[in-house]
Amino acid sequence: MKNDNVVSGIPDIVIGRLPVYLRALTHLAESGKMNTSSHELGRRLGISSAQIRKDLSHFGEFGKQGTGYNISYLIDQLLQILKLDQEWPVAIVGAGFLGHALAHYQGFKHRGFVMRWVFDIDESKVGDEMDGMVVQHLSDLPLVAEREGIKMAIIAVPVNAAQNVADRLVACNINAILNYAPINLSVPPNVHIQYSDPVVQMQHMTYYLS
Amino acid sequence: MKNDNVVSGIPDIVIGRLPVYLRALTHLAESGKMNTSSHELGRRLGISSAQIRKDLSHFGEFGKQGTGYNISYLIDQLLQILKLDQEWPVAIVGAGFLGHALAHYQGFKHRGFVMRWVFDIDESKVGDEMDGMVVQHLSDLPLVAEREGIKMAIIAVPVNAAQNVADRLVACNINAILNYAPINLSVPPNVHIQYSDPVVQMQHMTYYLS
Repeated sequence: MKNDNVVSGIPDIVIGRLPVYLRALTHLAESGKMNTSSHELGRRLGISSAQIRKDLSHFGEFGKQGTGYNISYLIDQLLQILKLDQEWPVAIVGAGFLGHALAHYQGFKHRGFVMRWVFDIDESKVGDEMDGMVVQHLSDLPLVAEREGIKMAIIAVPVNAAQNVADRLVACNINAILNYAPINLSVPPNVHIQYSDPVVQMQHMTYYLS
Repeated sequence: MKNDNVVSGIPDIVIGRLPVYLRALTHLAESGKMNTSSHELGRRLGISSAQIRKDLSHFGEFGKQGTGYNISYLIDQLLQILKLDQEWPVAIVGAGFLGHALAHYQGFKHRGFVMRWVFDIDESKVGDEMDGMVVQHLSDLPLVAEREGIKMAIIAVPVNAAQNVADRLVACNINAILNYAPINLSVPPNVHIQYSDPVVQMQHMTYYLS
């Protein structure tokens, strides 16, 4: 679903697996483990150990034959590679149920992101407080985006408004977008877009049901 | 993040790619295309054409050398394989912002799922209407689950309630769970669980930001 499958020589699909490795390593660290192996990681994730070693080899030499990976070192390296050694402020567009759920979501903490702005087109919502943010009118987006240097946004609006919102975000030089609306958006090739689609995950499970 | 990486001889990671193929094929069909190839699909998805051919070969012979895949035929086959030639009713647990957003979500339609029940532990929400559903108390889950034969559920509760909800779902023989709470849940090996985690998708994009 990405427009650019290869940037900087490393396939986008490899980049997409790094956060999955990061999450699994974090779980291992939280359970008290110090070291792991590509085999153990692979078993946990359903990915072959050869794939994991190959993915990581794009970025350097992180493990030792026989002793495997030092978990906290590998976590630090992945955080650096993914530019998560800083916190990214994010704009939410859409102050409806989903926008509220995202503003409340506890999973962003300590994982690189903080929801900082929320925009809506509905005058009746503008000025409302939402988890410490004040809902701003979408027409203020260009001004705020330029002043604050917003780079990431989440689209949490109804499906028929999503493309218009994407166009506005792109016009403000916001080039990393997580889209929750069930629609494939048209964006320029330099804009990174990810789709959150619960259906794909539900369809994965029905295979096993009888 | 699945407990069982191989069931019925086909790796779970392969099963997980089928809905992604299905979505891409559906987009191609909607754009008016009749045929496609593993190369075209691979380019769209950032997956190698060899991988796509290998994945599909687990289930039969769907394409022809040279002419590729007939899109609508392959869609039908994937729907059958993933048991999406029927509609699955789903229970939402949690009638907060996220539960409301899921009940409103337009993306389930015509893709195999219908939200049919919603449960909450908060007495003040019980009886409320939510997109045609009436919020029921979570203590009624066992009765309703048995009577209606509920097989799939979505956890949309705060993180500190999620494991308790998962235990209740498992006790009701619900064995396909989509979890939105940012926590790794303990479930028996026969229970299929998927995690919806926007952070993994956001972390995928920060790599490209400067």
